[in-house]
Amino acid sequence: MRKEPARKIAGKGKKRIVIQTFDIRDPSLAPEGQRRTAWAARSMPVLAAIRRRFEEERPLAGVRISACLHVTTETAVLMSTLKAGGADAVLCASNPLSTQDDVAAHLVVNEGIPVFAVRGENEARYYGHIQKALAHRPILTMDDGADLVGSLHMLALGRWDELGPGVREWAASLETAERDALVAGVVGSTEETTTGVIRLKAMAREGVLRFPVIAVNDSFTKHLFDNRYGTGQSTMDGVLRATNLLLAGSTVVVAGYGWCGKGVAQRARGAGARVIVTEVDPVKALEAVMDGLEVMPMEEAAPRGDLFLTVTGDFHVLRPEHFRLMKDGAILANAGHFNVEIDLEGLRSMADGEPVVVREHVEEYRVNGRSLFVLGEGRLVNLAAAEGHPASVMDMSFANQALAVEYLLRNRGRLERRVYRIPEEIDRQIASMKLAAMGVRIDSLTPEQTRYLSSWTEGT
Amino acid sequence: MRKEPARKIAGKGKKRIVIQTFDIRDPSLAPEGQRRTAWAARSMPVLAAIRRRFEEERPLAGVRISACLHVTTETAVLMSTLKAGGADAVLCASNPLSTQDDVAAHLVVNEGIPVFAVRGENEARYYGHIQKALAHRPILTMDDGADLVGSLHMLALGRWDELGPGVREWAASLETAERDALVAGVVGSTEETTTGVIRLKAMAREGVLRFPVIAVNDSFTKHLFDNRYGTGQSTMDGVLRATNLLLAGSTVVVAGYGWCGKGVAQRARGAGARVIVTEVDPVKALEAVMDGLEVMPMEEAAPRGDLFLTVTGDFHVLRPEHFRLMKDGAILANAGHFNVEIDLEGLRSMADGEPVVVREHVEEYRVNGRSLFVLGEGRLVNLAAAEGHPASVMDMSFANQALAVEYLLRNRGRLERRVYRIPEEIDRQIASMKLAAMGVRIDSLTPEQTRYLSSWTEGT
Amino acid sequence: MRKEPARKIAGKGKKRIVIQTFDIRDPSLAPEGQRRTAWAARSMPVLAAIRRRFEEERPLAGVRISACLHVTTETAVLMSTLKAGGADAVLCASNPLSTQDDVAAHLVVNEGIPVFAVRGENEARYYGHIQKALAHRPILTMDDGADLVGSLHMLALGRWDELGPGVREWAASLETAERDALVAGVVGSTEETTTGVIRLKAMAREGVLRFPVIAVNDSFTKHLFDNRYGTGQSTMDGVLRATNLLLAGSTVVVAGYGWCGKGVAQRARGAGARVIVTEVDPVKALEAVMDGLEVMPMEEAAPRGDLFLTVTGDFHVLRPEHFRLMKDGAILANAGHFNVEIDLEGLRSMADGEPVVVREHVEEYRVNGRSLFVLGEGRLVNLAAAEGHPASVMDMSFANQALAVEYLLRNRGRLERRVYRIPEEIDRQIASMKLAAMGVRIDSLTPEQTRYLSSWTEGT
Amino acid sequence: MRKEPARKIAGKGKKRIVIQTFDIRDPSLAPEGQRRTAWAARSMPVLAAIRRRFEEERPLAGVRISACLHVTTETAVLMSTLKAGGADAVLCASNPLSTQDDVAAHLVVNEGIPVFAVRGENEARYYGHIQKALAHRPILTMDDGADLVGSLHMLALGRWDELGPGVREWAASLETAERDALVAGVVGSTEETTTGVIRLKAMAREGVLRFPVIAVNDSFTKHLFDNRYGTGQSTMDGVLRATNLLLAGSTVVVAGYGWCGKGVAQRARGAGARVIVTEVDPVKALEAVMDGLEVMPMEEAAPRGDLFLTVTGDFHVLRPEHFRLMKDGAILANAGHFNVEIDLEGLRSMADGEPVVVREHVEEYRVNGRSLFVLGEGRLVNLAAAEGHPASVMDMSFANQALAVEYLLRNRGRLERRVYRIPEEIDRQIASMKLAAMGVRIDSLTPEQTRYLSSWTEGT
Repeated sequence: MRKEPARKIAGKGKKRIVIQTFDIRDPSLAPEGQRRTAWAARSMPVLAAIRRRFEEERPLAGVRISACLHVTTETAVLMSTLKAGGADAVLCASNPLSTQDDVAAHLVVNEGIPVFAVRGENEARYYGHIQKALAHRPILTMDDGADLVGSLHMLALGRWDELGPGVREWAASLETAERDALVAGVVGSTEETTTGVIRLKAMAREGVLRFPVIAVNDSFTKHLFDNRYGTGQSTMDGVLRATNLLLAGSTVVVAGYGWCGKGVAQRARGAGARVIVTEVDPVKALEAVMDGLEVMPMEEAAPRGDLFLTVTGDFHVLRPEHFRLMKDGAILANAGHFNVEIDLEGLRSMADGEPVVVREHVEEYRVNGRSLFVLGEGRLVNLAAAEGHPASVMDMSFANQALAVEYLLRNRGRLERRVYRIPEEIDRQIASMKLAAMGVRIDSLTPEQTRYLSSWTEGT
Repeated sequence: MRKEPARKIAGKGKKRIVIQTFDIRDPSLAPEGQRRTAWAARSMPVLAAIRRRFEEERPLAGVRISACLHVTTETAVLMSTLKAGGADAVLCASNPLSTQDDVAAHLVVNEGIPVFAVRGENEARYYGHIQKALAHRPILTMDDGADLVGSLHMLALGRWDELGPGVREWAASLETAERDALVAGVVGSTEETTTGVIRLKAMAREGVLRFPVIAVNDSFTKHLFDNRYGTGQSTMDGVLRATNLLLAGSTVVVAGYGWCGKGVAQRARGAGARVIVTEVDPVKALEAVMDGLEVMPMEEAAPRGDLFLTVTGDFHVLRPEHFRLMKDGAILANAGHFNVEIDLEGLRSMADGEPVVVREHVEEYRVNGRSLFVLGEGRLVNLAAAEGHPASVMDMSFANQALAVEYLLRNRGRLERRVYRIPEEIDRQIASMKLAAMGVRIDSLTPEQTRYLSSWTEGT
Repeated sequence: MRKEPARKIAGKGKKRIVIQTFDIRDPSLAPEGQRRTAWAARSMPVLAAIRRRFEEERPLAGVRISACLHVTTETAVLMSTLKAGGADAVLCASNPLSTQDDVAAHLVVNEGIPVFAVRGENEARYYGHIQKALAHRPILTMDDGADLVGSLHMLALGRWDELGPGVREWAASLETAERDALVAGVVGSTEETTTGVIRLKAMAREGVLRFPVIAVNDSFTKHLFDNRYGTGQSTMDGVLRATNLLLAGSTVVVAGYGWCGKGVAQRARGAGARVIVTEVDPVKALEAVMDGLEVMPMEEAAPRGDLFLTVTGDFHVLRPEHFRLMKDGAILANAGHFNVEIDLEGLRSMADGEPVVVREHVEEYRVNGRSLFVLGEGRLVNLAAAEGHPASVMDMSFANQALAVEYLLRNRGRLERRVYRIPEEIDRQIASMKLAAMGVRIDSLTPEQTRYLSSWTEGT
Repeated sequence: MRKEPARKIAGKGKKRIVIQTFDIRDPSLAPEGQRRTAWAARSMPVLAAIRRRFEEERPLAGVRISACLHVTTETAVLMSTLKAGGADAVLCASNPLSTQDDVAAHLVVNEGIPVFAVRGENEARYYGHIQKALAHRPILTMDDGADLVGSLHMLALGRWDELGPGVREWAASLETAERDALVAGVVGSTEETTTGVIRLKAMAREGVLRFPVIAVNDSFTKHLFDNRYGTGQSTMDGVLRATNLLLAGSTVVVAGYGWCGKGVAQRARGAGARVIVTEVDPVKALEAVMDGLEVMPMEEAAPRGDLFLTVTGDFHVLRPEHFRLMKDGAILANAGHFNVEIDLEGLRSMADGEPVVVREHVEEYRVNGRSLFVLGEGRLVNLAAAEGHPASVMDMSFANQALAVEYLLRNRGRLERRVYRIPEEIDRQIASMKLAAMGVRIDSLTPEQTRYLSSWTEGT
């Protein structure tokens, strides 16, 4: 592990904001990161097309962007697309366990993009990295879970004592005007995930939000694809890499039947599992029933499951009352954004002794003479034990990110302090670019059809 | 065929509006209609629960309702629910081919509800029946395709010459004030189907719409279930009853990948068919691709399909340029609301001789030495050749209808002249009632979870 | 109902065997039968190809064939194929409820083939018809359930008092030599169904079987297709026509996971049902588990099912101990060959009052205040309430029948008294003809590949 | 890499056969191998039950067994089961790329079982290891691909010059009697895979086979599960680990629709891919069509596939005439036993320059300006890039192995020199044990049902 010498950057007032150039595991991993990023880029034709345009038009020239995203090969392709557009971008991790150290190295060494992310970093270091991203004084921020925007607002609200260790001290060292200037300087932000959008909408509702946010997750070309097909495949992939479990004939309990949960359930079933769904929303529960799945409360599902997957965006979905009902050998994993869906503290407190690592990414807890296995410490299993979403699906999500950034800049001053979705036209354009890249042609409306659809007097 | 003697009803002015009590095929079919309606009612527990409340509360007491719906057993259950709520309701058909004559008889004879619907009625009689529904001077209307609301507005706009034969003459006989009073008297309407909603939104956009409309189709408990599971199953059911075709191993071309198209594609695939999708919307096309289906323009699909199903809500989706490419023996059917999706005139004009009925609901057209078979004259194949949606799914759609009618009355004067969806709370309530009736229990949020979801400061 | 005047035929001895020319519902139904048979023939290209060869080669010239098969449009195509080959064939029903009266009329009137089958005939008439088929003194017999071969052997064994009423008296009237001559004259038989094959193998095992039998059911191109795809689709089709039940979200209990049960389970699941399987064979049960289905004893499944389908070939699979556990509204149907899988006598004896027909093909039994609904009187639901297997799949089954008949003749005297399967080469030839008719091309082995596959020294 | 000092073992004649105790990568890997083997053992309850009985009964006491199997955690569980039964067993690899070095170390260090296997070993070392297994003078052999049995017979036939380098020299050094004694001493063998069975049946047909072989692959509890569910899941797992490709929306070409191919196709489709099947057998091709898949010659499939998977057991299924038609970016992998299904030499000879490793297990070949990617050097992708079959499925395959070994010993002298399948009773017993371990209960026949099934006079 090594850090480059710090470099001073002129602040706006008498004080100076000092940032380190980067903080990564090992720059020598760069060639492997480059090789793997090149592999991902092969499956990202939409972003490649955007990049070609960005290189010509330079719509982001000189714009400071702080991105707080999973540091993966696909993110690397996004970051270099932003840079191709002229942006002055830095990147920190949105999850301590999802960082791919070789990719971080590649971005620093080959792309000259400051990265602050080390796989397995502790809480202090994690928040220290968020601090670096804030200290970049971004004009635009990009979030995956709203940690950056949340921190910025806590800062401005004077509630920095509630923030993580690294940020807290730094915030305390700033003057009020500096703190306020940080938030005031932000033109807008993008948010990648459902969990973040929920938090941001709560902020907007409370009148706290200080700038417009584009909920990338609300784009069709994001949530219909990334959440369903991406989460679906990569979650099961994470489970298989961690366990090599035979899914055929097993009973998989999926908590949550939103887009992500639907994707996970579909893939589990496609792999031959019997799927049980738990839900709190009656409409989604009914959809699961009509899709031929069993629906029941977690209390009933707990003794039946061989594998439990939480995909709710909620808190303590699996907790001691469920652990004590589970079968010997039950496997627990989380596919939701934060590692709060499985109550690990509760599990630890009821277990005999400390958990034991029985296989990479697999910890055994002994409860009442039975073994429960938790994957990836309850963090996103697709990132902890596999490689996250396939590049092909991130291509569309990140095309939304890139175009959302451009849209925020173009509409600077014209947007309200609330959560927007990207205009449907941009959404459809991304879908069209993807289809073209796949070689799929579709129909277009004839003039008669267009007329028919807009008329209310015909058809009778 | 028989008609009851006409009965005079006092009009509002010096003129008198004369309506006939009913117009149905044969009252003696009532027992069969009753028996079949009782069978459907078994699968409609949500509507049964609403009915029990309506009988007590009488929320529709004395309210004149004109409904223009498919006259099926499920509609009969809805009509008697409305009556149980105190409504003075009449019913006409929303499609000349979908009427179940025994059900019409049952409603007239056993329920005392005026019905104007005869299966296979010609255009004049069909519009004559719409006229009867209008002449009921409804306070609330219920539509499935917006024919009633459309006619009312054409009337008010003085464009009745564009209406069907029966309505036209009657409209001409009214005075302007009477015509205007008809529209002015309407508190609101409900609309069942996507096609109708498209028309109504166009009317609202043009500023023409005169009263609020609840788009029942926009309810989750309607379009997520009725469109997908109902249309999916009943369309394939219609095809099988008409043809007894082996779906396994056949190539089914589904035009349109909206909720209905998704349902049809899913069931076709579930029956072992290879499914090809055509679309004009790139996002929907991409979804179809990601669902593992082939997507291509109709021009390419035409020579490959064994069975073509149109589910677009659009006009002339299959037309001569496609017919001439199709295989000998290709089967064509429509699952969209109106019989305009297959260009039958175009087909007829290019065919050798008149079409020949080779099996009930199957007409053979000879084109270039090949046979193309059209099912149910291009009308909704699930109603023409089978029994429409299963009662279980109509239970939810019609629970939305019944509660939408109640909601419109309760909010009389408080709603704008536009298309609404039913409040999500009512939607969720319907889903909960359905789950309860199925014996399915679900989880509810713990207080901690509720707090977590509404907080934006946690989770970091 | 009418019968043609009887016609006398010279017997072999002093006695005379008297047969009637035919016994069908109504000859005037012939045009409808012809029209429907023509529709089926469109989907039977393999049999059409065989027919063209038969017309030329006349391999069955003058051969008396007695067929005991379901009298459907597809059987009509087979019978006229046999006739085209020169056969002197007669046909009786293999199930009293499956006869399509218009098809029977068409065969008699347009094809000149004697048919003895009336839909809904009682036991006496049913066996009377079998007697006619026996009295034809067949050289070859074709069976679907082994009723013809079984009767022939009971006759020869002198156990005719155990046979049905019509056959019993006639058999008693014959002299021993005549009875023996009947069996001795048979060169061989074909058997269509699993149930029949089980019986025939028991006969062979006991040393009772008097001639070789080709188990058509053992052909790949029969059981892999007819049983799975044919039974699967047509069973669900029968259920839907009888009930219009929404399968999505329902719980379907499939008893038996042989080829037929697999097909039924696959289609039920493909229609959105949750499927529970019951089995007695641990290997098949394990397959069902691995296919993602739930497996449990019927006792546990009984209170969960909305729909029960028996597909076992066994006796009293659903019986009073299960009926008393079932939900109000449960629906029971049989897809196995004989109507013995549901213990209807047991059900009747525990029910309050007589069963009531609540919808065509649906009888309601009241048990402990709950309603159980039996479809098609427990007979094959795909034939009782729908149209049996689609023609396309019968094309292959009946191609096996036609070629098996030819094979038996060609190998007259060379086969033992046991149950054979058709040579694999004929089987493969049928598959190739089907693929060709569907326009599907496949690869063939290169010389190197052929060599590789036959060598055991390579590959290391 | 290290080798233990060689140890001398007395030969039968004046010469002495010298074997090394083991040849593995690194004994210090043993703890990891032990930990991972323990994880696999959790999913192998059937073998655990057999082991408990073996420990008591010691049915293999002193029996020399040479096993040539993939050296994986599951094989380790089998080997220690054999040892628990008293066997004197040694193990060599059946594939140079599938060896898990930590497992090899675990077997040697913790179980005291001689292992000869190093992942990535070259041809000379691979055959040297087979030589060690032969030199153990086995009474029973266990094969996965028939390499051991094949070598033994080549030896006996005096054709050792056709064998691999290591074996060749050693064989030449033996006297004829010694070579013959080696084969003569073998009581029987078991064979795991289809490919091996094909070779062995060819040997039996040619009258070359010298002892009975149990084709474990012919057991229902092997091929219905291992081939379908095991190969299906692990092949897709291997592809995902190697590529992180999004399967949803991709086109997967599966060459071969046997049990393995069916499993692969099912999982590919379950993951959202569009699946194209190629076949040479018309019956299997027709099954694929009826399963809703597209079937075409490889020549037509080549330009369509994103991913090609060979599962045929045949030679050069993908060859230059196909490579030149493939899309830029096409991925090629093999799931068949031997690495001969993709003609890699042909590919190499038409490529520009040497293949480049672009990601672990992924080699890029440049052909006509396009990139083709080959996974795992064309070897079994589930073993090369993932962990082979899940333990749960190997539990049954290896239960068959263990019981087959016991069966061969018990029936010493009573079996012919041909390929047998394990008796169905043993097969059913394994299925029952597995169901019990999964907590699944099934029905059993009532006495009436048993009687019914064995009777041919009932049912009419």
